[in-house]
Amino acid sequence: MNAERSFLTQEWYVAATSDEVDAEALFQRKLLGVSVLIYRDAQGNPVAMQDRCPHRFAPLSQGKRHGDEIACPYHALQFNSKGFCTHNPHGKGALPGKQVVRTFPIVEKHGFLWIWMDEAEADFDKLPHYGPLDQGPATGIAHTYMKLPVNYRMILDNVMDLSHVDHVHGEIISTRGKLSPLIPNVEETETTVSASWEWEQTPPILILNQFLPRPEDAARHWIKVTWSAPGNIQLSLFCAQDDTPVNEGPGQYDLHSVTPEDENTTHYFFCTRRNHIEDDAEYNAFKIAAMHDAFENEDGPLIIKTEKEMGGEDFFDLKPMLLSNDLAAVKVRRRLRDMVEAEMEPEVAIAAE
Amino acid sequence: MNAERSFLTQEWYVAATSDEVDAEALFQRKLLGVSVLIYRDAQGNPVAMQDRCPHRFAPLSQGKRHGDEIACPYHALQFNSKGFCTHNPHGKGALPGKQVVRTFPIVEKHGFLWIWMDEAEADFDKLPHYGPLDQGPATGIAHTYMKLPVNYRMILDNVMDLSHVDHVHGEIISTRGKLSPLIPNVEETETTVSASWEWEQTPPILILNQFLPRPEDAARHWIKVTWSAPGNIQLSLFCAQDDTPVNEGPGQYDLHSVTPEDENTTHYFFCTRRNHIEDDAEYNAFKIAAMHDAFENEDGPLIIKTEKEMGGEDFFDLKPMLLSNDLAAVKVRRRLRDMVEAEMEPEVAIAAE
Amino acid sequence: MNAERSFLTQEWYVAATSDEVDAEALFQRKLLGVSVLIYRDAQGNPVAMQDRCPHRFAPLSQGKRHGDEIACPYHALQFNSKGFCTHNPHGKGALPGKQVVRTFPIVEKHGFLWIWMDEAEADFDKLPHYGPLDQGPATGIAHTYMKLPVNYRMILDNVMDLSHVDHVHGEIISTRGKLSPLIPNVEETETTVSASWEWEQTPPILILNQFLPRPEDAARHWIKVTWSAPGNIQLSLFCAQDDTPVNEGPGQYDLHSVTPEDENTTHYFFCTRRNHIEDDAEYNAFKIAAMHDAFENEDGPLIIKTEKEMGGEDFFDLKPMLLSNDLAAVKVRRRLRDMVEAEMEPEVAIAAE
Repeated sequence: MNAERSFLTQEWYVAATSDEVDAEALFQRKLLGVSVLIYRDAQGNPVAMQDRCPHRFAPLSQGKRHGDEIACPYHALQFNSKGFCTHNPHGKGALPGKQVVRTFPIVEKHGFLWIWMDEAEADFDKLPHYGPLDQGPATGIAHTYMKLPVNYRMILDNVMDLSHVDHVHGEIISTRGKLSPLIPNVEETETTVSASWEWEQTPPILILNQFLPRPEDAARHWIKVTWSAPGNIQLSLFCAQDDTPVNEGPGQYDLHSVTPEDENTTHYFFCTRRNHIEDDAEYNAFKIAAMHDAFENEDGPLIIKTEKEMGGEDFFDLKPMLLSNDLAAVKVRRRLRDMVEAEMEPEVAIAAE
Repeated sequence: MNAERSFLTQEWYVAATSDEVDAEALFQRKLLGVSVLIYRDAQGNPVAMQDRCPHRFAPLSQGKRHGDEIACPYHALQFNSKGFCTHNPHGKGALPGKQVVRTFPIVEKHGFLWIWMDEAEADFDKLPHYGPLDQGPATGIAHTYMKLPVNYRMILDNVMDLSHVDHVHGEIISTRGKLSPLIPNVEETETTVSASWEWEQTPPILILNQFLPRPEDAARHWIKVTWSAPGNIQLSLFCAQDDTPVNEGPGQYDLHSVTPEDENTTHYFFCTRRNHIEDDAEYNAFKIAAMHDAFENEDGPLIIKTEKEMGGEDFFDLKPMLLSNDLAAVKVRRRLRDMVEAEMEPEVAIAAE
Repeated sequence: MNAERSFLTQEWYVAATSDEVDAEALFQRKLLGVSVLIYRDAQGNPVAMQDRCPHRFAPLSQGKRHGDEIACPYHALQFNSKGFCTHNPHGKGALPGKQVVRTFPIVEKHGFLWIWMDEAEADFDKLPHYGPLDQGPATGIAHTYMKLPVNYRMILDNVMDLSHVDHVHGEIISTRGKLSPLIPNVEETETTVSASWEWEQTPPILILNQFLPRPEDAARHWIKVTWSAPGNIQLSLFCAQDDTPVNEGPGQYDLHSVTPEDENTTHYFFCTRRNHIEDDAEYNAFKIAAMHDAFENEDGPLIIKTEKEMGGEDFFDLKPMLLSNDLAAVKVRRRLRDMVEAEMEPEVAIAAE
């Protein structure tokens, strides 16, 4: 069973966007195969626990809030945010006096709720940090979410290898054929794999050219994607003209993050922070909707069909004909495979005893 | 394979309500994993046989009646109610002269059709008897049926433990918080497990209070559920004021009965006999519709979600945090587990030879 | 795994009707478990290749045509009809210089496209030949296709045993009860199994009687079905009056051919060539539509329900009560079973090494 797990568990994963869990909601989402209830306490702090009453296993997310506590929808046992039963309307009302619902560490950061699902103690040093997301007004950053019926690695492949941009997407983000022929600059650290591309194109990329001094003239462009475990890819896209350093021109700093619902379904979150017309809430909404729609209508259907063609077989077993642009994506797949194996080794050792 | 069977087979199960199988119908239902054809002969007696022609396995329920005989829809072989082929329009019309379609003992009782599915000889001593269902006019009893995508034990759990009533259902059957705190009186015999609750509440339960002398005043209440194998629960609910014995006040005598379609789907039948306004056909229809809707809209969805949260794991393996009200329901689960094991032992012995 | 394969692979199968693949189409169909792209080159010759880019496995049928070449929808690698990569827009544009997409021999004949799916070299001697299909005007032959959720053998059973005709179908092709009582004349050769029936009926079969000298008078009738591997059944139906030899009267010469999509789903193709009002395109369309609808509405639903009743068990394991009319159909099942076993023996031998 464990041998077939493709994802890491001793990591922080995005469970929801901050906006998805409002002050009153009993929000439910299946993460890493486990059904989770997420809500906010009176202070607005997120709480996460297994969405399953320990009595007869009804989903607590179908129950009722009483302040910061949740009453089960079936027999009204009530639980606090630490997973203790605080009220039992049955018999003499005895309480177990110990934690009876599994809780999960959950942290709000960069407009996302990050959860630690593993039974091992949460490692707060592993919590991702993407400082630039927090720099600028609220109307300069937007978040979105979608769910896809594919293994999470299919989405990482797609974002790590941007050579598909001119072939899958429309005019609006065309590199005019300039990106594909480039050999990406692939860099690795102990915890990251990145790929970057630099080129000049005319006219500049259409989502940004209107913010350049001369929208129709050639501009230098730079994209960089940086993966870190388990499923975060930070993507920067900037362009500039004249003597402006490319990363000081108009551009955007995005985070793509994937969380397995299970082996076959993936929660896909992303957000984008931009450095132009940052105070326009309407443009902000338009911007994220356009990105969401591009993925949903262009990458998404293709990735789904592609995985179906793979027929459940392992990517490497299918002996892919790899190209220079695949280098970073393949490195990520290999890192994940090795990290998952390392994570499971203790389990295997125990099972073999 | 057998080791995973959760239900008994050497028992009588409800196959259908009497009303579901009219004089002309070729009624089909899958019971205990087997597709069954049920119809009535010219005398109105029910007939049950495997819904599969022995020739090329077409479903006989798609065929045509010729009096008490059934012609297969594919090649028109004709069979009588004993499972013998009586007409063969092919070649020289040879007939096998022995039973070729499996038949099942089926008995009409209490407005239900009871079937014996096991290959062992039907044990008529095991046929349930609920005398009070037959006492009173036809307009004082009503039957209903629904199908649920859960293992049959989830429904037994729900009916054996009524402490959920105030939490799942609306005002109309509220005990005003009185039932939950009670420790039920659990009794066992060799063939039954029962639980009963007695309490006083004001106003009396709203489905009955209008039939009491003083509808708004306190009344004594009594509920008793009695399970017997394989999946029958007789439920009595009565209330009374003054010196009237509680079981002589207004009330109802119900039978809930579950029949596995297979391990994951259950046919749920119930009927209710009442001792008030017994001659009102319109009220009769209203009464059963209200009970049907309460289960379909309130218990049903919750039970489905609860089983989903159990993720296919065994109830006891999940280590439920049991409460005093669970005692009878848990005793039923244990009895069924032991009885199924006992039923399978001979099979296992044969397989091991 | 292989032990469960029920179909032959070293054979020619119908992949599509000629009409389904027009000059421009990138036509996709799953055949024998493999997703196949079919299109026509500039000369109109059919091309078939695995519908999977060797790079990241996107379906090529979602891509774009550039003349006779196909560009992958994901990263625009371009392939010719021999499965060679001819253009790589990435990096330095290196080309592998060998075949990278699996291609399949595909031949157009009798209005169908026939494909060889096995890895063994295509055996052109096995390509079926049904000469009469090609004799006569284009308006005297029509083709159709439908897909059924059953194993392919269920359809062969249905066509090889026509004793169901009077029981499943309507007046229009009734034999007035004459066919069923006949013992078919079953003949075998090394590569075929056939069954034929001869009888006289009044009025003659209604689809043909209007083309006889005296439409309401008795006529001699003859039907013959001839199976050959893997799933072709040639069906002839003729009738005549007076001294005309039966096969010179009005009639039709049909081909039924089944191709497994996989073990549980079958592509069913058939065509009919007639020798009466051969120049009427409207009648031609009506004729094939009527045959298509009869199967879709009458045989099809029954076969689907029949297979469901078989519950995934092997036909012979269920011990069918066979009749004289089943002889040819059963011979075909046994031949196929033996041929599949023979085909797999080398594989088993290799696996056991």
